[in-house]
Amino acid sequence: MTDFTPKREDKFSFGLWTVGWLGRDPFGEATRSPLDPVEAVHRLSDLGAYGITFHDDDLVPFGSTASERSAIVSRFRGALDETGLAVPMVTTNLFAHPVFKDGGFTANDRDVRRFALRKVLRNVELAAELGAKTFVAWGGREGAESGAAKDVRAALDRYREAVDTVAAFIKERGYDLKLALEPKPNEPRGDILLPTVGHALAFINELEHGDIVGVNPEVGHEQMAGLNFAHGIAQALWAGKLFHIDLNGQNGIKYDQDLRFGAGDVRNAFFLVDLLENGGYEGPRHFDFKPPRTEDYDGVWASAAGCMRNYLILKERAASFRADPRVKEALEASRVSELSTPTLGAGEKVSDLLAEELDVDAAAERGMAFEKLDQLAMDHLLGVK
Amino acid sequence: MTDFTPKREDKFSFGLWTVGWLGRDPFGEATRSPLDPVEAVHRLSDLGAYGITFHDDDLVPFGSTASERSAIVSRFRGALDETGLAVPMVTTNLFAHPVFKDGGFTANDRDVRRFALRKVLRNVELAAELGAKTFVAWGGREGAESGAAKDVRAALDRYREAVDTVAAFIKERGYDLKLALEPKPNEPRGDILLPTVGHALAFINELEHGDIVGVNPEVGHEQMAGLNFAHGIAQALWAGKLFHIDLNGQNGIKYDQDLRFGAGDVRNAFFLVDLLENGGYEGPRHFDFKPPRTEDYDGVWASAAGCMRNYLILKERAASFRADPRVKEALEASRVSELSTPTLGAGEKVSDLLAEELDVDAAAERGMAFEKLDQLAMDHLLGVK
Amino acid sequence: MTDFTPKREDKFSFGLWTVGWLGRDPFGEATRSPLDPVEAVHRLSDLGAYGITFHDDDLVPFGSTASERSAIVSRFRGALDETGLAVPMVTTNLFAHPVFKDGGFTANDRDVRRFALRKVLRNVELAAELGAKTFVAWGGREGAESGAAKDVRAALDRYREAVDTVAAFIKERGYDLKLALEPKPNEPRGDILLPTVGHALAFINELEHGDIVGVNPEVGHEQMAGLNFAHGIAQALWAGKLFHIDLNGQNGIKYDQDLRFGAGDVRNAFFLVDLLENGGYEGPRHFDFKPPRTEDYDGVWASAAGCMRNYLILKERAASFRADPRVKEALEASRVSELSTPTLGAGEKVSDLLAEELDVDAAAERGMAFEKLDQLAMDHLLGVK
Amino acid sequence: MTDFTPKREDKFSFGLWTVGWLGRDPFGEATRSPLDPVEAVHRLSDLGAYGITFHDDDLVPFGSTASERSAIVSRFRGALDETGLAVPMVTTNLFAHPVFKDGGFTANDRDVRRFALRKVLRNVELAAELGAKTFVAWGGREGAESGAAKDVRAALDRYREAVDTVAAFIKERGYDLKLALEPKPNEPRGDILLPTVGHALAFINELEHGDIVGVNPEVGHEQMAGLNFAHGIAQALWAGKLFHIDLNGQNGIKYDQDLRFGAGDVRNAFFLVDLLENGGYEGPRHFDFKPPRTEDYDGVWASAAGCMRNYLILKERAASFRADPRVKEALEASRVSELSTPTLGAGEKVSDLLAEELDVDAAAERGMAFEKLDQLAMDHLLGVK
Repeated sequence: MTDFTPKREDKFSFGLWTVGWLGRDPFGEATRSPLDPVEAVHRLSDLGAYGITFHDDDLVPFGSTASERSAIVSRFRGALDETGLAVPMVTTNLFAHPVFKDGGFTANDRDVRRFALRKVLRNVELAAELGAKTFVAWGGREGAESGAAKDVRAALDRYREAVDTVAAFIKERGYDLKLALEPKPNEPRGDILLPTVGHALAFINELEHGDIVGVNPEVGHEQMAGLNFAHGIAQALWAGKLFHIDLNGQNGIKYDQDLRFGAGDVRNAFFLVDLLENGGYEGPRHFDFKPPRTEDYDGVWASAAGCMRNYLILKERAASFRADPRVKEALEASRVSELSTPTLGAGEKVSDLLAEELDVDAAAERGMAFEKLDQLAMDHLLGVK
Repeated sequence: MTDFTPKREDKFSFGLWTVGWLGRDPFGEATRSPLDPVEAVHRLSDLGAYGITFHDDDLVPFGSTASERSAIVSRFRGALDETGLAVPMVTTNLFAHPVFKDGGFTANDRDVRRFALRKVLRNVELAAELGAKTFVAWGGREGAESGAAKDVRAALDRYREAVDTVAAFIKERGYDLKLALEPKPNEPRGDILLPTVGHALAFINELEHGDIVGVNPEVGHEQMAGLNFAHGIAQALWAGKLFHIDLNGQNGIKYDQDLRFGAGDVRNAFFLVDLLENGGYEGPRHFDFKPPRTEDYDGVWASAAGCMRNYLILKERAASFRADPRVKEALEASRVSELSTPTLGAGEKVSDLLAEELDVDAAAERGMAFEKLDQLAMDHLLGVK
Repeated sequence: MTDFTPKREDKFSFGLWTVGWLGRDPFGEATRSPLDPVEAVHRLSDLGAYGITFHDDDLVPFGSTASERSAIVSRFRGALDETGLAVPMVTTNLFAHPVFKDGGFTANDRDVRRFALRKVLRNVELAAELGAKTFVAWGGREGAESGAAKDVRAALDRYREAVDTVAAFIKERGYDLKLALEPKPNEPRGDILLPTVGHALAFINELEHGDIVGVNPEVGHEQMAGLNFAHGIAQALWAGKLFHIDLNGQNGIKYDQDLRFGAGDVRNAFFLVDLLENGGYEGPRHFDFKPPRTEDYDGVWASAAGCMRNYLILKERAASFRADPRVKEALEASRVSELSTPTLGAGEKVSDLLAEELDVDAAAERGMAFEKLDQLAMDHLLGVK
Repeated sequence: MTDFTPKREDKFSFGLWTVGWLGRDPFGEATRSPLDPVEAVHRLSDLGAYGITFHDDDLVPFGSTASERSAIVSRFRGALDETGLAVPMVTTNLFAHPVFKDGGFTANDRDVRRFALRKVLRNVELAAELGAKTFVAWGGREGAESGAAKDVRAALDRYREAVDTVAAFIKERGYDLKLALEPKPNEPRGDILLPTVGHALAFINELEHGDIVGVNPEVGHEQMAGLNFAHGIAQALWAGKLFHIDLNGQNGIKYDQDLRFGAGDVRNAFFLVDLLENGGYEGPRHFDFKPPRTEDYDGVWASAAGCMRNYLILKERAASFRADPRVKEALEASRVSELSTPTLGAGEKVSDLLAEELDVDAAAERGMAFEKLDQLAMDHLLGVK
C-alpha cells in the first residue's frame, strides 16, 4: 500500500499568504490571529514541503524602512537555513494598498504606475537575493468595472512596457530569474486584463523580452471562466511557457474559492497531475489556496497536508492508469496516439492529398470508444481495480 | 432625428445559415421550411445589407457532384450580380456531418483529418472564386468530453499543421484571402480547443504562416466564458489580428443563444461599437445570429433588420458620447488619456525611476471618478440628453 | 473485493431516449441509427437495470393512429413481460413538435395549451396502463427569450391550472400515480419557468392538488445554475417532495451535457449517493443521460453500464465513509450532529434565551475541523484506506 | 423633457452599508475613511431618497454597551427627524463577526445559534422602535464548503425553528413588522442554504408563522445563478410574497458585484421596473449596492444618485413602452394577453377537452412575432422614437 507522505523531491511549495491567510473575506472579519512567517517555514518543512513563496508585503510589511526590512529578511533566512526550505518563487503585491485601486502597471495615474514599477524592481532584487528562480506577477487590479474607464489598448501598451522593463532589468543584472504572468478573469476587478492563459500567452508574444516571460496558471482562475484547466496547461506546455503553476480547487464559476488542491473538480485534477507528471514540467508543485475561515490552525495544517496528499494520491492513480494494459488497449481503440502522426505524409504535396478519396459513410460509422476509456480513468481515479 | 436605415456603406453582412436557420434545436424539430439562398440574397439586399456569407454546405449540400455544385454556384452568382451583394467571407463546415464527430483538423482518425483538409482546400477555392477576402474557420468539433480521449498537445500540432497547410495553399495560389479562426469555449464539444480569443491569438503565434491568419471573435462565444467581449476585441486589435467579427447577443453563461445583435448585454455592445467605429476596424459588420424558432419568416426578417438597427443606434450613441463636452471633462477627471503616456520618460533609466519617491497616501486618496463617467455613458446609451 | 454488478434490487432505470439518443445536436446530424425500443428493453435488462421509462413520443411516434399505438404498446409490453423489466415512470414530450415552440401548458396560444393538456391526459392513461407510479413533467418549452413575450404571472396561473387538471384527472380515475415536475433553468428556452428545485417546490405549494405533486430533479439541470445538487435534493427530501430523480453528469455552467452519472462533479455525486442511500429515498435510481455522439452502440452500452457502476462504487464508498470510526470522530469534532438538537430547549421561553450570555470571543476561536473531515471524505471517495 | 430628479414619493431607500462601504475587498484594504451615519442621512435626504436602512452593527458597533447604543440611536433619530427620512427596513448582521463563521441560525454550535437568535430578537426590537415595517434576514453564512460538514435537513429544521421563533416574537409583541428572507447562491459560503427566490419561497411554506414571512430578492444574487431576475420577482409576486427588494447591478455569473442599479443587465432591469411599477409592488425601491472602491466620496454620491436616476429613466421608458399603440398591436400579434384566459372554459369538463381536435400543423406554422415586440422594447429602452 502506497505511502502518501510528501518528500522534498516531490517539490511541493506553499505561499506564505496561504497558510497565513487570516480568514477576512468581503463579508467577515479575520477568524485567525497572525502567523509568524518563521513558524510557517518550520511547519511547512515538518509537513514535507520543499519550498515557501511570498509576496513582498507578506514578509516585509508595506512601508517598512530599509533596516526593518533587513532585520525581517535576515530572520526569515535563518529559518530557511535551519530547515533547508527553498524560496523557489517570489511574487509581488500590486493589489492590496489603496494606491493600486485602479491597477499597478496599468493604472490611469502615471505616478502610480511608476511607483508600481519601483516596487516590483525592488522586489525582484529580493527574489534574486533569496535564490528564487521565478518571479510571478498577478495583475489582479489591472482591469475595470466600466467600459469607458480604461482604454484597453493603451493599458496593454503600458502592461508591455512594464513587463519589458522588469525583464530587461533582470537581464541587465544577470539574475537567474524568469517572469511568470498569472491570468485571472475577474475579482477583484469586474474584468481583469489578460483574463486567461490564452490571453497571457498571446500578450507575451508581443514583448521584446518575451524569452524570459511565461505563465503561472492557477486552477481556480481558469475554472472561474468555465475553462478546462488541463487543456490550458497543455497549451502552455505546447508553447514552452509553463514556468510555474498554482494548484488549488474551485467549484465552478463563482467567486475565487482557493480550496485545497483536490477539492473542486477532482476529475480534472487527475488529468492535470497526469499531464504534469508526464508532460515535461519540472518546476515546483505550488499550492495557492486558502484554508477556509471556519478552521483554526489545526485545520490550516490539515488543509495544507491535504493539498500534498491529494496530489500524491492522484499521481499514483495517474501512474496506475497509464500502466494498465486495458487502458493501453482502450487508448488504441480510441486511436489516441494516431493523432501524433502528421496529417500529411512526409513531403506529401497538397495535390496528392486532393486526389485521395474517403468512404465518408464508413468512416462516420466508426465509434470512438471514449466512454469505455473514460470509465477506466474513473476506475483508476477511484481506486477500483 | 437620426435615420437608422442601413446602407451599403455600413458594411452589414449576414450568414446564409442565420436567416436560413430552420429552428431545429437539441430538443425540437425545425419550425420553418427551408429558405432558398437566392431569396436570402434578395431579402438581405432589400433590407440594406451589403454582403452575404456561407459555409460550403449551406450553399452546396454535402456530397453534391461537381456539376450540381456548379449549377448551384452559378445560380447564386446570378442573384449576387442582380443585387450587387458581395460575398466578403466564406467559412467551412467541419462539424455537421457524422464523420466529424471527433473533429476535423484534430480528429484522432488520420483519414478524417485528411478528408477535412481536402474539404477546406476546395472550399478555399470557392471562396477565392467568389471574391471573398476572409476565410473563417470555426473548429467547433475540435475538442473532447473526457480527459484521456484527446492528447491536447498532439491536437495542437495537428491544428497547426492544418492551418499552415491551408495558409500555404492560399499563398501558393496567390489568393487575396486571409484566414480567421473563430474561438469558442464549449458546445457542441464539452471543451473546445482554442476556447477564447486569447488562446487563438497565442496559437497563431506558433504558426509558420501566421501573417495571414487572424481571429473572428463572436460576441456570444466569449460571453459563454463570462469574458468582456469589448476587452477581447481590444486585445485582438492591439495584436493587429482582428480580421473579421461575428456580432450577436447572449444572456450570460449558458448554451449558445445567438440572439440578434443588441439583445443580451447591450451595455457591452455599446462599448464594442464605440471600439469598432473608433478603433481602426474596417471589415464587415457580420451578424452570426439565429432568429428564435418561435418566429415565422416575418419574424426572421424583423430579427435581421433588428441586428442592423441596433448597430446603427449604438453607433449614433457612441458618437454622441464621444462628442459630449461633459464626457470629455469626465474622461479627463478619470485620467483616461494619461494611460497613453509611457510610464518611463523618453530615454529614462531605471536608476532614475528608482530614485523617485511618491506620497503614496496622497495618491491613494485621489478618486477615479469612474461612476460619473459610466453614468454619462449610460445616459448616452439610453438617449437621455 | 466488492462486486459492482447491478442487480434488480438496485432499482436502476433508464429513459428510452437516453440509450436511444441518435446524437443529433445543434451543430450536427445523427451519428447513430435508430434503436428498436424492444432491443433497448432486452439490452438494459441484460445489463442489470430494473426499469425503463419513456416520453410518449419515444415509444409511439407523434401522430400515430390508435391502432398503430396499440400495436406498438403491445409489442413493447411483450418485451417487458419477457424480461421482467418495469416501467416505473412515464413522461411527456411537450417540446419537440413545432406546435410547442412557445410552450405547452403556458403557450400564449390557448388552443396549443388545450392540445398539450389533451396529449398529457392521454399519456397519463398510458402510464397507468403500464403500471407506472410516477408521471414526470418537464416543461422545457415553458419560458421565453424576451421580456415582453411572456406574462410570467399569467403563465404561472396557466401552469397551475394545467397541473391541477392533470392531478384531478388522476385522482378521479383512481390511478396510483404521482406527478413529478422537473425543473431546468434554461435551454431550449432562454429562461425556463420553474428554473430550480426551489421554484418548483414553491409552485407546488400553490396547487389545489399539490398532495400528489412533487419534483424530479436532474443533476445537470441544477448544476447549470451553479447550484449544489445534493443540497437541493436535501431540501426536496425535507419537504417530503422527492418523488423521482434524474441522475447524470455535468461539467459546470454551460449547455446541458447529460454525461453519464459520475462524470462531471464526482465529489457532489458522492454526497448525493450518501444522501439518497441514507435519506429515505426509495424510488428508482433513474439515469437521464446522453451517450456522447462520438460513440457507436458498443459505446452506448458501455456508457449505460458506467452509470450504474459509478453509482454502486459511490454507494460502497459512502457506506465505508459512514462506517469509519475516524469519520465518526471527525463528525463529532465538527459538531455535525449538534445541529439536530433544537436551538431552544423543550418549552424554553424567549425570555430565558434573552437572559443568557455567551463568551463570544471564546466561541469564535473554536475551529470547525471541516478540512480534516472533508479529507476523510476524499480518502473514502478515492478508495484510500 | 422628463425630469429624473428623485422625489420622496418615489420611495427610494439605501442601506447605510452601501454608501458607507469603505472599499475593503478580499484582495485590498479600505480606500475610503468611515462615513458618519448622520452624514449619510443628510446626504441621502439631499439626493432625494425617502429612507435609510441598516444592519444592527452598521449603526451600533458589535459589542456596544446599552448606554452606548442608546446614545448612538438617539443621535441617529435626531438626523431622521431633522430630514424626515424614514427607516422602512432594518436587517441583521449574522455574518461579519468570527463567531458566525459557520453560520448563525444554522451553525453547528448550538450556543452560537442561541447567540444569533438573541442578537436578532434585540435587533427586531430596535427595528420596531424606529418604525421599520420590514425586517430582512440574509443568511449569508448559513451554508458549507464541504459535503459532510453540514446536515442540510437538520440545518433547515434549525432555520425554520429560528425564523418561526422570531416571527412568533413579533406577533407576541404586536409589532407591525414583517420578515423578509434574502436568498443568495454562494459567497461568502461555498454554497448557501436557500440559494434562490424559489428555495426561499418553498422554505416559507414549511413555516408555522409563514404568513408574516416573505422574500427580499436582490438583483445580483439571482443573477449569480444565471437566473432571470424579473422572472423570479414575478413568481414572488404571484405567491404574494414580495415584501421588499434589493436593487443593484451584476455582470453575470461571478463574484457578487453590487454595481449601481442599471449597470449590469439593463435590459432585464427595464422589464423589472416595468413589472414593479405595474405589478402591484408598493414597498420601497431599496438599493443594496457598493460604490466601487476606485471612488472617493464624490464618486459615492454620484453612484447613489445614478441608482435613482436609472430607475426613473427606466420607469419612464416602461411607461412609454406600455402606452405605445404599436406595442399594443405587437402584444396582440404575439397573443400575450391570451395567456390570461383560462385553458379550460368555465365549468368545462375534461371529457369535453378530450373530444376536441387541433390542426396541429396549421397551429405550428403561426409565428409568435416576439422579435418585433422585443425590438420595440429595445427602441423604448434606448429612447428611440
